[in-house]
Amino acid sequence: MNAPMSSPTPANDVYAKTGVPELGLRNYWYPVLASWRLRKKPRAIKILGEEIVLFRDAGKVHALQDRCPHRGALLSQGSCLYPGSGTLSCPYHGWTFSGENGKCVAKLMEGPDAPIPPATAVKSYPVREHLGAIWLFVGDMEAVPLSDDLPDCLSNDEKWHGFSTWRTYQCNWRVMKDNLCHDMHAPFVHRNAPELILQPVFPHASQLSAEPTPDGRGIGYKSRNGISTANYAGLGQFPPAREQWYRRLKPTGRGKEINAAEAPAFVKYGYVHRQSSLLPGITLIGRPSGDYFMCRWIVPIDEHTMLFYSFSRFRRRGVLSTWLERLQWIFWLSWAHDWLFSDQDKRILERVKTERETLARTDVGVVAWRRFVAEHARRPPAERRAAAE
Amino acid sequence: MNAPMSSPTPANDVYAKTGVPELGLRNYWYPVLASWRLRKKPRAIKILGEEIVLFRDAGKVHALQDRCPHRGALLSQGSCLYPGSGTLSCPYHGWTFSGENGKCVAKLMEGPDAPIPPATAVKSYPVREHLGAIWLFVGDMEAVPLSDDLPDCLSNDEKWHGFSTWRTYQCNWRVMKDNLCHDMHAPFVHRNAPELILQPVFPHASQLSAEPTPDGRGIGYKSRNGISTANYAGLGQFPPAREQWYRRLKPTGRGKEINAAEAPAFVKYGYVHRQSSLLPGITLIGRPSGDYFMCRWIVPIDEHTMLFYSFSRFRRRGVLSTWLERLQWIFWLSWAHDWLFSDQDKRILERVKTERETLARTDVGVVAWRRFVAEHARRPPAERRAAAE
Amino acid sequence: MNAPMSSPTPANDVYAKTGVPELGLRNYWYPVLASWRLRKKPRAIKILGEEIVLFRDAGKVHALQDRCPHRGALLSQGSCLYPGSGTLSCPYHGWTFSGENGKCVAKLMEGPDAPIPPATAVKSYPVREHLGAIWLFVGDMEAVPLSDDLPDCLSNDEKWHGFSTWRTYQCNWRVMKDNLCHDMHAPFVHRNAPELILQPVFPHASQLSAEPTPDGRGIGYKSRNGISTANYAGLGQFPPAREQWYRRLKPTGRGKEINAAEAPAFVKYGYVHRQSSLLPGITLIGRPSGDYFMCRWIVPIDEHTMLFYSFSRFRRRGVLSTWLERLQWIFWLSWAHDWLFSDQDKRILERVKTERETLARTDVGVVAWRRFVAEHARRPPAERRAAAE
Repeated sequence: MNAPMSSPTPANDVYAKTGVPELGLRNYWYPVLASWRLRKKPRAIKILGEEIVLFRDAGKVHALQDRCPHRGALLSQGSCLYPGSGTLSCPYHGWTFSGENGKCVAKLMEGPDAPIPPATAVKSYPVREHLGAIWLFVGDMEAVPLSDDLPDCLSNDEKWHGFSTWRTYQCNWRVMKDNLCHDMHAPFVHRNAPELILQPVFPHASQLSAEPTPDGRGIGYKSRNGISTANYAGLGQFPPAREQWYRRLKPTGRGKEINAAEAPAFVKYGYVHRQSSLLPGITLIGRPSGDYFMCRWIVPIDEHTMLFYSFSRFRRRGVLSTWLERLQWIFWLSWAHDWLFSDQDKRILERVKTERETLARTDVGVVAWRRFVAEHARRPPAERRAAAE
Repeated sequence: MNAPMSSPTPANDVYAKTGVPELGLRNYWYPVLASWRLRKKPRAIKILGEEIVLFRDAGKVHALQDRCPHRGALLSQGSCLYPGSGTLSCPYHGWTFSGENGKCVAKLMEGPDAPIPPATAVKSYPVREHLGAIWLFVGDMEAVPLSDDLPDCLSNDEKWHGFSTWRTYQCNWRVMKDNLCHDMHAPFVHRNAPELILQPVFPHASQLSAEPTPDGRGIGYKSRNGISTANYAGLGQFPPAREQWYRRLKPTGRGKEINAAEAPAFVKYGYVHRQSSLLPGITLIGRPSGDYFMCRWIVPIDEHTMLFYSFSRFRRRGVLSTWLERLQWIFWLSWAHDWLFSDQDKRILERVKTERETLARTDVGVVAWRRFVAEHARRPPAERRAAAE
Repeated sequence: MNAPMSSPTPANDVYAKTGVPELGLRNYWYPVLASWRLRKKPRAIKILGEEIVLFRDAGKVHALQDRCPHRGALLSQGSCLYPGSGTLSCPYHGWTFSGENGKCVAKLMEGPDAPIPPATAVKSYPVREHLGAIWLFVGDMEAVPLSDDLPDCLSNDEKWHGFSTWRTYQCNWRVMKDNLCHDMHAPFVHRNAPELILQPVFPHASQLSAEPTPDGRGIGYKSRNGISTANYAGLGQFPPAREQWYRRLKPTGRGKEINAAEAPAFVKYGYVHRQSSLLPGITLIGRPSGDYFMCRWIVPIDEHTMLFYSFSRFRRRGVLSTWLERLQWIFWLSWAHDWLFSDQDKRILERVKTERETLARTDVGVVAWRRFVAEHARRPPAERRAAAE
């Protein structure tokens, strides 16, 4: 009932006819804030267009709609007047709400005998803490278990370890998600990224295909017959020779065209796709070894803003390799990947004009993802029944 | 005729059905600028959505619509080219307007023989200087005497002395006025204000009533049976014990529940209400002694902004008490009240979301004030006749 | 086809009924950037509401629509990957466009065999470099020769020399152009400009007339019987005596009322008008000598912004006078005119409110110019035929 009036995507926008909603997919879990950033003071956040207050009491995190129903003040300006009760009090007249269910439990300025109709409540959001992040379920139905929405490398902390970072992008979440549908931008945008400087060039002009993942949660991508270099009539070679002098190393690791069926990722662990897109806006990128995943979670904030929550996950293979991977991430990947590499996209995505597009062979994954979202995004039971009849 | 097209309050706004206009009540006097701030240069102000230029010539202040009818330049960028004539010249082609009535008296670039149709004029506003402030009458009818709109403590400078301050708030004037309708926010928002640190806590959970003031200019508030402390089931005591350790003094003065009928304010001076709201947006708060009033005048600027003009008025009781009160204001009240105390409200009010509300027992005064405005706000004679038929 | 949806002038705007378009006159040449400011990196500009990327390859400047048709990235974030080919590559997936005609010549990430339908293209704009500036033809028809749109003093570099400056104004171009229609603002706004300090006051209250220029490209202005001083009833003298003490020199040069028919400008060179307005938004102001022109080119950027491109042109009369004129411009005119003098207008124009106007005798030139634009602005052949039938 408290869902914001979604300002509809303008009709001349390329997304208007895709069925992918501007403010994101409801009825999913999203990571919204690093746990350590929520301390004694309540904190206002925005996600899927909804303004929410997070607060922590007796160690437990609660999430409520950030507007007092009484006279409209922000609950995030209030405080936990009664520590241990799991309640938050409005800063204006002290209406006090349960973090558990959003119900008003006291109107302090009206006295202990104030009548409180049962409907006096704010929307409350299911909350979890997991992997050092606070997760919210935003939607119109009962929350599913958090693990339902997590890929394996995030749900199983005993098998995986890693770090997360976050960054706000000034673009709609769909522009960013399309970017992560294995659309061949990487061999172009990132061809000179420091992270790849010791690796051969990404192959490009691959034949792409996209298909549902085995678990049915999203779309997996396959590519074959990519080329590392080509000659373009009237132009010259790509990548330009002047950008190639430092590439002395033989193709290994990420830069190499790898037969997916022979990669350890498939042979040892059965991973069919090296890159996949999962609902509600996750991109999973693995290495051929099967021992590392980048899991990038796109969290819509509003029409023009999104939160990019990025998890680097390493398979636990022993204390020594865990520590080496931690050092590698801290001294190299956090800088080379989560910062420099990602900013090569950010600069472009924040200026994309979405009023027209001309999709091509490189956009197979984009088309498949959009269609998958329109068909398979989770809906409340009532809606599902209505749609089925 | 020059009234701005008022952008109507959105339909989902709580004020839309109250009949209290977004840009303020027209046909009243408002304090708009401290006198000393208007010197040789004309000055642009905005009030009730109207853009106005103030200028001072030969000591007298004039107020005109701030747009030249010729080619639309701002008169506030012009100058008094002919000191003593009471005129202001447009900066663009020198059209010159009388501060008295707004009529164009010369078109300097067209020469002394330029034809000037009588209709060539800008709207002029009645102006007064009083209590160190410049006052404007903004409306669509002949101005009433300024004293008609002033409470006694402001109109009678021989009986009262004091100071004024002003502050711009980033909120609609109605949000602020509701705050000043004795709505029980004070015992909550201001419970730890430095101004009250030597006083007992405000009583809360009082039984409130609101009724027209004896002079018919507004609504007066009464409250009884307030409590200083109470226990809330599942929560604890309010105010929380941890906020009470410093309250050692017995309730006196403002913090004490006082029988209004026995207070000197009533016995000596006949003041029936300790707090009242007067048209067009005044709040008058007295002390039980009857010797002090805070008069807070809310001046709408535009939809999202207002000017908070605050007068502290002490009854003249002798040279010594006058000087002591001045020192008290300068070294204490100006800081503790007009700044710290008021900012406790400002922080909340500037973020209030007015799209929904759930009024309760504490809002008796708010409801009464809104209804009073809708029924009794001053209207031009023609409108009154039309409404009466 | 790529013309922006012009946000129409609001109906209560004085320009709504003039037929002078808000975003400027299409199908003309405009100076948009100093040549030296376009180096290796492509550069985004906006003109007549269109977003355009300029880039220079092998010395030649190209101009394309600044949005890749593929996925909407800004081409101005791309680069000339293949120097010498006259192409620009999109930063996102490397779609590469010819600067000559806007056609897509490669989709780098799709490989050399990618199908490229002929319609895959961006709008390209005719470009010239001339007088140290880059000129664009913005419109919906084949470009006319650049010289068609230039006044003589700009088209003939062998007969004229000079400098140019540019400045962005935060106002619609029409407000600025009206300012330059010999509307008698100069004797008022600029009466105390340092540039004129050694000259007598401009005459004002002249009888103005406006007529098409001999070449049919615009409107020329004539004025006679101006006065240098006058007495205004109830006000006093204009210009006020207190502003006149420093005017010791006899009227010569610009400040003097000159019989146009006897001026060298007419006698030697046949210039009929000392000031004129030419399509698409040029103001030409000459001196009586006929040896100097200020040519001020108004370039619409969007509804609220314009570029003011100002050329000072001196007739070449010998090496010595050329050098003296250069020194005069560098050490005096650039400061006194292009900066101080012009800023006296800028301050006013950026605040003009165009919702109403009352034209008068001083606005003869404004009315004539607006009418001329509505009737004579260049239109594509098809539109001309349709209008003729």
